[in-house]
Amino acid sequence: MRILLVGAGGVGDAFAKIAARRSFFECVVVTDFDITRAERTIAWLTERHGAAAIAGRFVADSIDASDPGSVAAVAQRHSITHVMNAVEPKFVPTIFAGAAAAGANYLDMAMSLSKSHPTSPYSLTGVTLGEEQFAVTAEWEAANRLALVGIGVEPGLSNVFARYAADHLFSHIDELGTRDGANLVVRDANGEEIFAPSFSIWTTIEECLNPPVIWEKDKGWFTTEPFSEPEVFVFPEGIGPVECVNVEHEEVLMMPRWLDAQRVTFKYGLGNEFIGILKTLHQLGLDSVTPVKVRTADGPAMVAPRDVVAACLPDPASIGPRMTGKTCAGMWVTGTGKDGQPREVYLYHVSDNEWTMAEYEAQCVVWQTALNPVIALELLATGAWSGAGVVGPEFFDAEPFLTLMARPEAEGGYGQAWGLEDRLAN
Amino acid sequence: MRILLVGAGGVGDAFAKIAARRSFFECVVVTDFDITRAERTIAWLTERHGAAAIAGRFVADSIDASDPGSVAAVAQRHSITHVMNAVEPKFVPTIFAGAAAAGANYLDMAMSLSKSHPTSPYSLTGVTLGEEQFAVTAEWEAANRLALVGIGVEPGLSNVFARYAADHLFSHIDELGTRDGANLVVRDANGEEIFAPSFSIWTTIEECLNPPVIWEKDKGWFTTEPFSEPEVFVFPEGIGPVECVNVEHEEVLMMPRWLDAQRVTFKYGLGNEFIGILKTLHQLGLDSVTPVKVRTADGPAMVAPRDVVAACLPDPASIGPRMTGKTCAGMWVTGTGKDGQPREVYLYHVSDNEWTMAEYEAQCVVWQTALNPVIALELLATGAWSGAGVVGPEFFDAEPFLTLMARPEAEGGYGQAWGLEDRLAN
Repeated sequence: MRILLVGAGGVGDAFAKIAARRSFFECVVVTDFDITRAERTIAWLTERHGAAAIAGRFVADSIDASDPGSVAAVAQRHSITHVMNAVEPKFVPTIFAGAAAAGANYLDMAMSLSKSHPTSPYSLTGVTLGEEQFAVTAEWEAANRLALVGIGVEPGLSNVFARYAADHLFSHIDELGTRDGANLVVRDANGEEIFAPSFSIWTTIEECLNPPVIWEKDKGWFTTEPFSEPEVFVFPEGIGPVECVNVEHEEVLMMPRWLDAQRVTFKYGLGNEFIGILKTLHQLGLDSVTPVKVRTADGPAMVAPRDVVAACLPDPASIGPRMTGKTCAGMWVTGTGKDGQPREVYLYHVSDNEWTMAEYEAQCVVWQTALNPVIALELLATGAWSGAGVVGPEFFDAEPFLTLMARPEAEGGYGQAWGLEDRLAN
Repeated sequence: MRILLVGAGGVGDAFAKIAARRSFFECVVVTDFDITRAERTIAWLTERHGAAAIAGRFVADSIDASDPGSVAAVAQRHSITHVMNAVEPKFVPTIFAGAAAAGANYLDMAMSLSKSHPTSPYSLTGVTLGEEQFAVTAEWEAANRLALVGIGVEPGLSNVFARYAADHLFSHIDELGTRDGANLVVRDANGEEIFAPSFSIWTTIEECLNPPVIWEKDKGWFTTEPFSEPEVFVFPEGIGPVECVNVEHEEVLMMPRWLDAQRVTFKYGLGNEFIGILKTLHQLGLDSVTPVKVRTADGPAMVAPRDVVAACLPDPASIGPRMTGKTCAGMWVTGTGKDGQPREVYLYHVSDNEWTMAEYEAQCVVWQTALNPVIALELLATGAWSGAGVVGPEFFDAEPFLTLMARPEAEGGYGQAWGLEDRLAN
């Protein structure tokens, strides 16, 4: 297996660091529009593991993710078998096309972007997340190539949990509800708590202010107003109760294709403070990407308000050392258990920032995202997972994934325990 | 009396419209950096009152308010007796100096700006509002010229109310508390409520995020954190309860110089929503006036985040026709009445946007501000008020002001009733 990693930002860097401890592949070509970022990642790996372990297994190259021709050329130059997309979702179409042109398999962690319904954005779907990718599944099947889409943590691990629940825990599923929450805190140099989102504010605004999508068996996909159906979800391992709201996310567009449920939802534990901030930005028009005319010392400039918001906040990639707390990704499932009794479970994985910083010098949210495609590639390399077409993680048997993930590192696994909470009293 | 009106923005325009109904002056020279704004005001006056009533009494000129030499030259050219400052407070020092250089009297509605204490901004005052102006009172006295500072509505009418309470209602004052609140609502073309502050967001941010100042007889002036001492104040004439917080304002720096009280405060009825928005802007650094680097289609630009916030909101001068509701300015006084019994009163004036738009095509907040300097100039013209030095409205007897203000227009007054609420239940 020869992997082309597209993007050496936070998630790409963490992917390389996690992969460096594994031996299932021949080579990872670490690429970026700015090759010095790729070289920095490889320098870190060399420093940590020694030149003998890294040289030849990890090589740097530059790439233009916005150009399918560039992606295909880099893939062919390095005889790539698997293209691993680790950049912003706006580059999905070009990397996806480049991988196809190069005859390589493809993986990503976020899918092609949505477009709101032109007249009823808050009740009807327009173009949905991933729709453009699922549309060409027949071509990928015919070419006997695999596009494993949405294999980060959410989507990704959440979908694996959903498949596990369907196979092993439930005879009938009412709701597959991805629930994501954290208790992360970032402090400034004086130890004061500051507002510093752990993920790109640009993407977070996009995600949170787009109309959230819900799937119901008798209705299909439909949308709501942003921040709909707030609920307080209690997260495990000390994170505790967090206010969660519906957010547009891939899982809702993926799971109904392979799994049987009455309802599929995604709720993000933004918390009241963050929800309030996003609402205020929207109310003031500061979420807008349409440039406005602003006076500057050099005369008027046309700037997108959302870019100004991003420019005022700390770079999410830089806040790891000043952050404490845990992030939890998981799947809340309700329905009827194998025994015919009502059942409610929460399947989850928690990532602790202190641990990911100490072990990988990676912030916990990006590290948790990067973990899952490494595991998936290992399952594809060993043949535990195989297939063709454009598919999500729930297409595959969840058991080998969760087993390899939880097995201690000393025994060849990833040493990442996952949890199962039965939530109905007795 | 020959008046130089500096600034034909919202307040300057309303000043001219109110003055046009009076006959106490010989001429108002309406000036602006952009003379077309002054000409537009005079065109409106001519349209409303006829050329015979306006020609010669109102003339347009251009001025550079940032240059004392320009202010003095325009004043001398028109043989000005009174310079009326109606622009942003940052121009106070230059207009004040220009008036002095021209040998004219001076009035303003906001005073020279403050500078926070360098090390303890939230407990100690630095340079206070108006400090630079009060510092030269001896020079103005020696020249036998009057600088009547802070004669808008707040400061202005609030100070007149305070003097009235001290002279006529109380034998001992515990607190002189200016309280300002409104129930103004702005709607978009579809009738949906929108967020559109009735005053410059730039100035509002400055005012609300500066450390608020309080005066106590045994402590003198001191500052607090922004938004301190929240209280729900019930405003009259249907406005009702509004959340008010301490805000830095001139009254607190003015009243203790002439009036005897145990405590002087200013609280602004921002309401919870607006307070939340201002806190969020501050938390995200979007209130900052320090430019940040932002990507644009034409390459990186350096823009002040606060300018972007202002650019995203509707121009306050434009929202009058889409606004409904009332604004209330007033003085809440507690202490011992003339009869030796505890007393608590609220002296106030309410301005209704529908009425000010219909009568003056002026938004109620700017109209209410502009009303008071016209009345004051009339009292100075008739000799009912006279004096020298740098003084606030509370320096003068309040009775003639409030009488002239409340007297019906048909009887030579301004037809603006003011209210007195006794608030202690007996």
